[in-house]
Amino acid sequence: MTSTPHSTTHTSRVFALETMDVPGGTETILRGGRHLFPLLPQAFEGIRRIGVIGWGPQGRAQALNLRDSLAGTDIRVTVGLRPNSTSAADARAHGFTEADGTLGDWLAVTADSDLVILLIADAALAAHHQEIFATLEPGAVIGLSHGFLLGHLRSYGGEFPPGHGVIAVCPKGMGDSVRRLYEQGAEINGAGINSSFAVHADPDGRATDLALGWSVALGSPYTFRTTLDSEYLSDIVGERAILLGAVHGIVESLYTRFRLAGDDETTAYEKSCENVTGPIARTISHEGIRAVREGLAPADRDTFDRAYTATYRPARDLVAEIYDEVADGTELRSVILAEQRLGARPMSGISGSPMWAAGERVRARRAERELPVEPFTAGVFVATMTAQIDEFAERGHPWSEIVNESVIEAVDSLLPYMRARDVAYMVDNCSRTARLGARRWGPRFQSAYEQIAYPAAELPASDALLAAFDTHPAHEALAAAAKLRPSVDISVA
Amino acid sequence: MTSTPHSTTHTSRVFALETMDVPGGTETILRGGRHLFPLLPQAFEGIRRIGVIGWGPQGRAQALNLRDSLAGTDIRVTVGLRPNSTSAADARAHGFTEADGTLGDWLAVTADSDLVILLIADAALAAHHQEIFATLEPGAVIGLSHGFLLGHLRSYGGEFPPGHGVIAVCPKGMGDSVRRLYEQGAEINGAGINSSFAVHADPDGRATDLALGWSVALGSPYTFRTTLDSEYLSDIVGERAILLGAVHGIVESLYTRFRLAGDDETTAYEKSCENVTGPIARTISHEGIRAVREGLAPADRDTFDRAYTATYRPARDLVAEIYDEVADGTELRSVILAEQRLGARPMSGISGSPMWAAGERVRARRAERELPVEPFTAGVFVATMTAQIDEFAERGHPWSEIVNESVIEAVDSLLPYMRARDVAYMVDNCSRTARLGARRWGPRFQSAYEQIAYPAAELPASDALLAAFDTHPAHEALAAAAKLRPSVDISVA
Repeated sequence: MTSTPHSTTHTSRVFALETMDVPGGTETILRGGRHLFPLLPQAFEGIRRIGVIGWGPQGRAQALNLRDSLAGTDIRVTVGLRPNSTSAADARAHGFTEADGTLGDWLAVTADSDLVILLIADAALAAHHQEIFATLEPGAVIGLSHGFLLGHLRSYGGEFPPGHGVIAVCPKGMGDSVRRLYEQGAEINGAGINSSFAVHADPDGRATDLALGWSVALGSPYTFRTTLDSEYLSDIVGERAILLGAVHGIVESLYTRFRLAGDDETTAYEKSCENVTGPIARTISHEGIRAVREGLAPADRDTFDRAYTATYRPARDLVAEIYDEVADGTELRSVILAEQRLGARPMSGISGSPMWAAGERVRARRAERELPVEPFTAGVFVATMTAQIDEFAERGHPWSEIVNESVIEAVDSLLPYMRARDVAYMVDNCSRTARLGARRWGPRFQSAYEQIAYPAAELPASDALLAAFDTHPAHEALAAAAKLRPSVDISVA
Repeated sequence: MTSTPHSTTHTSRVFALETMDVPGGTETILRGGRHLFPLLPQAFEGIRRIGVIGWGPQGRAQALNLRDSLAGTDIRVTVGLRPNSTSAADARAHGFTEADGTLGDWLAVTADSDLVILLIADAALAAHHQEIFATLEPGAVIGLSHGFLLGHLRSYGGEFPPGHGVIAVCPKGMGDSVRRLYEQGAEINGAGINSSFAVHADPDGRATDLALGWSVALGSPYTFRTTLDSEYLSDIVGERAILLGAVHGIVESLYTRFRLAGDDETTAYEKSCENVTGPIARTISHEGIRAVREGLAPADRDTFDRAYTATYRPARDLVAEIYDEVADGTELRSVILAEQRLGARPMSGISGSPMWAAGERVRARRAERELPVEPFTAGVFVATMTAQIDEFAERGHPWSEIVNESVIEAVDSLLPYMRARDVAYMVDNCSRTARLGARRWGPRFQSAYEQIAYPAAELPASDALLAAFDTHPAHEALAAAAKLRPSVDISVA
C-alpha cells in the first residue's frame, strides 16, 4: 500500500475547474461556493436518493450540509442507522425522521439509495461492509470519506463490489467544523472545509462530477484530487502526527519543560498548549508558516531557530516511522487488536492530569490578555509541521493534499477546537482509529522531544536547516491554497 | 503464535532432576552447579565441536563459559564470525584464534560443528539463516538463545531444516551478567544466571540432555523447561515491559514528578531511578516482592498502596497491549521496518537529558548514604511488575518462566547493571530488538503513568487490589525459585 505518483488533472462536464501552481507543476482544482449550488442537480444526475449511513460527527455534518445544499431539488437525503442506534434521537432532533422517510434502518436505506455514503465508525465498517455491499441496488455508487475501508479490504484480500462506482470526498476537518463553517458560509460565501476527492471505480463515467458535486454541497471552498491510497496514508499518518498525536506530545513535553524552568502552572499552560492552539495556529492560518518566525524579535528568533533545529530530525524520524507502519498495514493491525481488547478493557481517559486543570483557568481569563507567540514552542511546533510536510513530499503526495493534511486542517479546524476544549478532550473524543493512534504516538513525540530534542536545543541553530525552511516550497503551495478560501476564522461555540 | 499450555515435565539420562512446587502444580527443574561439570561429556555425547556464531555480549559470554566448563574434555568451542567482522580482535584477545582453529568464518565454523549456537543479531539472523541452514552438516543440532528466529520463520512461512535437532537455552539475563556471575561461581558454586530450555525438534532423542548440558555449562543455577513460542513471547514482551521499556518510562515519569514537587535534581534522581535500581531491586532480590511493602512504615505504606492501586490497571493494559502485538507478529514487523529505515537514519541516543547528568552526581556520592525505599516509587514499580506477572499467568506461561522473566532477570541481572551505568545507557546499548522495543514502549508507560496513574494516586487505595497482591501466588513461586540459587549478588565492574 505504498503511495504512487498519480494524476491530479481531471475534467468536469459540470464545473469550471482551475489550475493551481504548486511546486514543480500544477494541479487541477475546483473552487467551491454557494453560487455553484444551482449546478448540483446536473452533477448528481441519476441520483434521486442519497443515503448517509451513520450519525457520528461526520455523518451528522454531511447529512445536514447535503440536505441544506440540495433543498429545492428532488434529491432526497436519508439517514441510515443500525438497529437500536443511540443516535436516532439526535437525528430526529435534526429533522431526519421515520415519518417523512428520511430516517431508517441502515440496510433498508442502503437498498433504497443511489449514492450510499458510508460514515459509520471504522470498526463497524470493518465488521459490516460485506452486508452493506450485498444490499446495494444495481449501479448504486459507494461514497467514502476516508481510505480506511480500502486499507481494511487490502488487509484480508477483499474487493469493492464490481459494477459499482466507488468515490471518496474527504473533508480536511472534523465533522463539527464541516458543519460549523458551512453555517458561516451562509454569510460569507465560500466558507467551509476543503476536501480531497478520489475516484476509485467509475463504471459509467459519472464518478468525477458526482464527487465534485458532493464536495460542493458539503461547502468545500477548494476540492483537489487524490487517490484512496494517498488519502488513506496521509489521513492516518496526519492524525497520528501534526493533527493530533504530535500536538498532544508537544504540549505535554513543553508544559513540563516550562514548569521545570520555574513557570507556574498557568504560565506554563499559556506558553505551551494555549500558545500552539492560539497565536501560533492563528498566525499560520492568516499569514502562513514562515510568518511565525518572521514575527519574532531577533533574540526570540534565535530561540525559535534552536528549537526548530533540535526538533526537526526527531520529528522527521517519528513521522517516517508512523508512515512506514501505516503503509505496511501494521498500524491498522494494532487498531484492530485494540478494538478486540477494548471490549473487555475500556480505554481510560487522559484528561485527569494537572495540566488540563490549568487549562481551565487559562480559558477563564482569556479575555484579559493577548498572548505573544512563545518562540521555543513555535520552533518545536513549526519543525514538527515541516517534518510532516517533507515526509509527505518525499513519499509523493500531491501538494494540495500535503498542505491541507499538514497545515490547513490543523490551523483552521482542529487547533481552534483544541483551543475551545482542550487537547486531552480532543484525543478522548475523536474517532476510535484517531484516538488509538494519538494514544500510541503522542507519547513517542513527548519522549523524543524531552530526551533528544530539548537537550539539543542548547546548541546553536543549523543554518542549513533554517535556509531549507526559509525557501521551503510549502510556503508557495500554502499561499496558493490560501487564495482559494475567503478569510474567515472558524467560530467554535 | 499464541501460547499454549505445555508440559514442564521431562526426564534426563544424565542429570538428577528435581520437582519444584509452583502455584497449581509442580515443574521439573535442574539445579545446576560446578559439581555437575564432570557429567558434561555424557550430556554432550556425539558433540565434538560447538560453534558459537556471533560475538555480541551473549556470544562472548557463552563462548567463554562453554570453553571454561568444557576444559579438559575433547569438546572444542569455536567462534564463527562473518567476514570482516569488527569483533574478531576482541575474540582473539579472549583467546579464540585462527591459529589454533577456534576462530573462523561463520559458515566454515557452521559446517564444521555438531552443535551450532546462533547468537548473531536478530537482523543478521533474519537475513542469513537460510545460508546457515544450508551449511549444516548432517545431524548437526541448531542452538538458539531466544525465540526470535521461530517468530521470523513464522512471519514468512519458513521452517527449520528437517533432520536437525533444534534446541534453545535462554539465559534470563544479559550477556555480561551471564559471564560475570559465572566468574563469581568459581568462588561460590552455583552462582550464575537461570536459563530456560526448549526442545523444538529432537530427531534422535539427544535434545533434552544436550540442552541441559549446555545450560549447566553456562553456569545456570536453575534450568526450567519452556517452548520456543512461550520463550519468544515472554522474552520480547518482558524486555518491552518490566525488564527495560517500562523501567525507563517509570523512572522518567517519577523523576519529573519529584522535580515538579520541588525536589532538586539529585534528590529526584535518588527517589526515582536510584531507588528502583538500588534498594527496591535489592529488597526484591533478597526477600521477595512483598517485602518491599512490608518494610515500609505505616504512613509510607499508605503512599505505596495508593501508588500501587493507581498504577496497576494502566500497567496491566499496556502489558496486554504489548503482548497482543508481539503474539500477532505486529511488533516483529515494526522491528523489521525499523531495521530497514535505520540504514538511512541512524537511531539517536537518549542519554543527553538532564536526568542522566544528575545520575552521574548521584553515583559519585553513593558511598555516603544508604537510601531508604521510596514508597511512591516502590508502589509504581511493584504494581508494574505484578501486572506483568498477572498477564503472563493469564496467558498460560509456566511459573518458572513468569518469575524469571518478570522478577529474577530484573533484580539479579538488569537493574544492577542499570545501577552501575544508567537506564538510558542500557536502552542505547542493548540488542537492537530490545532497544527498538524499549524506545517504542517506554514512552507509553511514561505517558500513561503521568496522565492516568499519578493523578489517580490522590485517591484512596483499593483494598481488593492490595489483598490480591498480598496473597499473590507469585510470592510462593518466587520463594521456591530463590531456594535454587546461592545468595550472591552480581558484582558489576
